[in-house]
Amino acid sequence: MSDHDAEEVLARFEELTVLETEFEDAELEIIRKQNALYAPLYKKRAEVIAKIPHFWALVFEQSPPEVDNFIQPSDSNIFAECLESFEVSRFDIDNPKGSPRSFSIKWGFKKNEYFEDTVLEKKFWFRRALDGWMGLVSEPVKINWKKGKDATGGLTDAAYNLFQAKQKLGADAKKKETSLPEYKALAEKIEQSEDASVSFFAFFGYVSSWKFVSAEESEKAFKVEAENLEKRKRGEKVEEDESTEEDDEQDYQETEVFPQADELATIIAEDMWPSAIKYYKHAHEADDEILSDISIEEYDSDEDSDVEMDIRALVGKGKNSKGTGETPPAKKQRRS
Amino acid sequence: MSDHDAEEVLARFEELTVLETEFEDAELEIIRKQNALYAPLYKKRAEVIAKIPHFWALVFEQSPPEVDNFIQPSDSNIFAECLESFEVSRFDIDNPKGSPRSFSIKWGFKKNEYFEDTVLEKKFWFRRALDGWMGLVSEPVKINWKKGKDATGGLTDAAYNLFQAKQKLGADAKKKETSLPEYKALAEKIEQSEDASVSFFAFFGYVSSWKFVSAEESEKAFKVEAENLEKRKRGEKVEEDESTEEDDEQDYQETEVFPQADELATIIAEDMWPSAIKYYKHAHEADDEILSDISIEEYDSDEDSDVEMDIRALVGKGKNSKGTGETPPAKKQRRS
Repeated sequence: MSDHDAEEVLARFEELTVLETEFEDAELEIIRKQNALYAPLYKKRAEVIAKIPHFWALVFEQSPPEVDNFIQPSDSNIFAECLESFEVSRFDIDNPKGSPRSFSIKWGFKKNEYFEDTVLEKKFWFRRALDGWMGLVSEPVKINWKKGKDATGGLTDAAYNLFQAKQKLGADAKKKETSLPEYKALAEKIEQSEDASVSFFAFFGYVSSWKFVSAEESEKAFKVEAENLEKRKRGEKVEEDESTEEDDEQDYQETEVFPQADELATIIAEDMWPSAIKYYKHAHEADDEILSDISIEEYDSDEDSDVEMDIRALVGKGKNSKGTGETPPAKKQRRS
Repeated sequence: MSDHDAEEVLARFEELTVLETEFEDAELEIIRKQNALYAPLYKKRAEVIAKIPHFWALVFEQSPPEVDNFIQPSDSNIFAECLESFEVSRFDIDNPKGSPRSFSIKWGFKKNEYFEDTVLEKKFWFRRALDGWMGLVSEPVKINWKKGKDATGGLTDAAYNLFQAKQKLGADAKKKETSLPEYKALAEKIEQSEDASVSFFAFFGYVSSWKFVSAEESEKAFKVEAENLEKRKRGEKVEEDESTEEDDEQDYQETEVFPQADELATIIAEDMWPSAIKYYKHAHEADDEILSDISIEEYDSDEDSDVEMDIRALVGKGKNSKGTGETPPAKKQRRS
């Protein structure tokens, strides 16, 4: 390839990069419009749901496999017994320093034998790091487990403790982090739990798929990016920031709790939450296919199948739900 | 459960069903807004892409696994050699009798040694059947393969022939369909091809994941549904149409070409098409991870890896693309 061709390719690359930011702006605009358009519908839905016992427990039972696979039989028990409300919201939708991509997932529980909390809220912030990484980050949520009831075997506590300890370290946290006793404690917990099926509640201990990015770093990174965009538009060369290269050396996976939590949270927010009625109705399609699905998925836990049947019985699942709503042939029903 | 409770549950079900249609309306509105907002961006993008050789072949190479898994080495060859343009459009976005969910996928090819066509367009209509089923249906596209070059081993021809023969049967097609010679021919082709890796081009033979639904049936079904909605709003009981029960007996899978084509088409339209720049840039991230991914995915075809390398070389992929755009750490890069 000649120098001229290489220059051509670089020029096209810059054009595409500028264009990508326009696509991103359009997507954020769509998220905002969607939020405004759906808000009154979610309100109406919440009013109907408030009159339906176990609505959200049933939705979680019938959630897409990307969610359902993370729900252990013991988690199903907790949802069935005491999940009262559930909500997804985009708390930074109009915050110019935040992102419309950020969202919160909030579970409301009755008083129960497992933990002291009646609300567990997990926030995901869409942030940009100075090294160019973008994604959802979160802070570990403290669950006040009752004695002997911690479904995560100490994972949420250990994740919370490490995060708090790191906050105290301040600016040069990265270097000292691995020598913290809380770091060692969490790494050990994760190593121990690797073979066991981890409780869904470990989700609350999640931080990031890469590393935590603070609001300050993110604001700065977005500002740098906006400046770079202006340079690109003027045809100037943009230097990428390589200063944080050293971070890449650290093994974040050693203290990574619930590695796929960001993807799971995204499916909950973008599919399960808007399509909750559909999943609730699935719970009422009592044909043989669904019954056999249950026995396949949960062959290892008769107890859980019983619980599931109990929830369904409570909300009056009949043998045939036709006439009560739309039930296309289950065999080919699309969950899209 | 008492009769009163059962009635309560039914009443809530009806409320949820009405609410679901409002969610559906909101979603269609979002699709329309998205279409309007993105139209000028797609136009701009097409202008830049026109100056970049092999853009779409590279995007297909780097497409998400849900797409990439269907592309055989021989398909990659065809894309690399002669794919010139690519476009997704929502052709029924403003048609009151159509659905904003319908879309077309159009490939533009140079003159080539494989087929006579320079344009292959696959349309997907979102339709509703009288039995309540909803989904994407399509008509088989005739590919005019050159002699000895049919990558699908006759699948697209057989699918096209059966569809034409069924059209001629007219109204009572369903009963006679299985006795058509074209039916037997396609069923046999499908049985033969089951073990082999089917070419991506078999996608053009796809009809439906359930059965074909005509525009007339769909229009009638949506009308019935709208009337039922009004009844539900007035609190009247709605009888579901059970008249087409007999159809469920037929084994549509016997002549189902490329069973996941509707899901694949949806991912192409909703992810690969809007995010094409991102996938194109992935093709330029020449780090070891991507190279090793390629060798894992395509260990069975050295030839293909060579082709892929050739395409990349053509567009000037260097060892390090930093400075030419944003390249977050590949290890944790999110394709969201």
